[in-house]
Amino acid sequence: MPRTMKKELAVVLVSGGMDSCVCAAMALQQHESAFLHVSYGQRTARQELRAFQRIAEFYGTERTLVCELSHLGRIGGSSLTDAAIAVEEADLERREIPSSYVPFRNAHFLSIATSWGEVLGARSIFIGAVFEDSSGYPDCRPEYYRAFNRLIEAGTRPETRLEISTPVIRMKKSEIVAAGRRLGAPLHLTWSCYRDGDIACGRCDSCALRRRGFREAGVEDPTPYLDAEKT
Amino acid sequence: MPRTMKKELAVVLVSGGMDSCVCAAMALQQHESAFLHVSYGQRTARQELRAFQRIAEFYGTERTLVCELSHLGRIGGSSLTDAAIAVEEADLERREIPSSYVPFRNAHFLSIATSWGEVLGARSIFIGAVFEDSSGYPDCRPEYYRAFNRLIEAGTRPETRLEISTPVIRMKKSEIVAAGRRLGAPLHLTWSCYRDGDIACGRCDSCALRRRGFREAGVEDPTPYLDAEKT
Repeated sequence: MPRTMKKELAVVLVSGGMDSCVCAAMALQQHESAFLHVSYGQRTARQELRAFQRIAEFYGTERTLVCELSHLGRIGGSSLTDAAIAVEEADLERREIPSSYVPFRNAHFLSIATSWGEVLGARSIFIGAVFEDSSGYPDCRPEYYRAFNRLIEAGTRPETRLEISTPVIRMKKSEIVAAGRRLGAPLHLTWSCYRDGDIACGRCDSCALRRRGFREAGVEDPTPYLDAEKT
Repeated sequence: MPRTMKKELAVVLVSGGMDSCVCAAMALQQHESAFLHVSYGQRTARQELRAFQRIAEFYGTERTLVCELSHLGRIGGSSLTDAAIAVEEADLERREIPSSYVPFRNAHFLSIATSWGEVLGARSIFIGAVFEDSSGYPDCRPEYYRAFNRLIEAGTRPETRLEISTPVIRMKKSEIVAAGRRLGAPLHLTWSCYRDGDIACGRCDSCALRRRGFREAGVEDPTPYLDAEKT
């Protein structure tokens, strides 16, 4: 391949969930990709890290970075990081910000991606944030990513050209499932549940959104659920 | 004190250096303060943490949080975090970004401060960034902090009212020294040197800026320097 045809590098945030897995599949269509995973003292750190490792292995990703932000657990303020706050049962009609919101979490992830991307000379950061068909976290809104892009511009070297890409932000979960299928993304390796079990609970917000997505896409969800009998 | 007179809470980033120490003294004039310190795999993590602990003890700060970002060291790209890149001798006339720039570092610190501040219900984040009389890091520019304030607005709960305050950003180092003296800030407890020794080298950018600041302020620098004989 001539030198000018060399693919540009992207840093992809891969949590181990479905949205970031499909986002990674999209990034890989046009970019050489470096996969970033962050554990932050969340209940399901073990399951998510395992899913990340399997997805990275599936894609044969050479450049990976796994980071540990234990202070987000110490700061708490979320049912995902504070054992004293219970994970709510799903309520997809809820209007207020749910207890699973981890205060300002995505800025930590994007800061790592920006630092790493700047050193690697990457051109993009892919993140699988979902806006409308989601739990309503403030740091999943399109305006938030516009603000972060301005921050990158202001806070990095003048020659750095890094931009955040949010390819699934306007998609419904069912569209994400369909896109993942079309792109051959390893959805069977992903972990979505907010609860710390060996099998997904099927009843938290994240499980509920995932199940509805598969149902509406007419695709069978490969995930075993604790309450499989009831569906 | 009547309830309405209760002081608002501020999160103060205290690196252990002179600028953040004076910034803390300023914050404490009007706010109840929570002190945040971050180690990030930098050469002088040990000296800076010790300085932080002494400053927090000096002020009797009850709320402190110490975080460890070892991945910034793994990402590298800076003479402060990568042992393979030498710390340059001071050059205060340099125009390009120096090798001590840690890619996008301050965003990591501010993200932690925002998460913690949101959970604590704080109203401000104080950071001792210095713009003109400094090494020229992009993430010390006023526009960078304006961009971060927009990010906080977009990425936190609607009821959160957190704003970054940069009280020394336009000050010369000599003005910072003078302000520190006026406010009784414990400048004798601070550590500025970029090099990992038991005594400050006196010759890196950070030592040179500090020494010039004390000299121009007409105040004796309480720091012992390795090359004290030469000055």
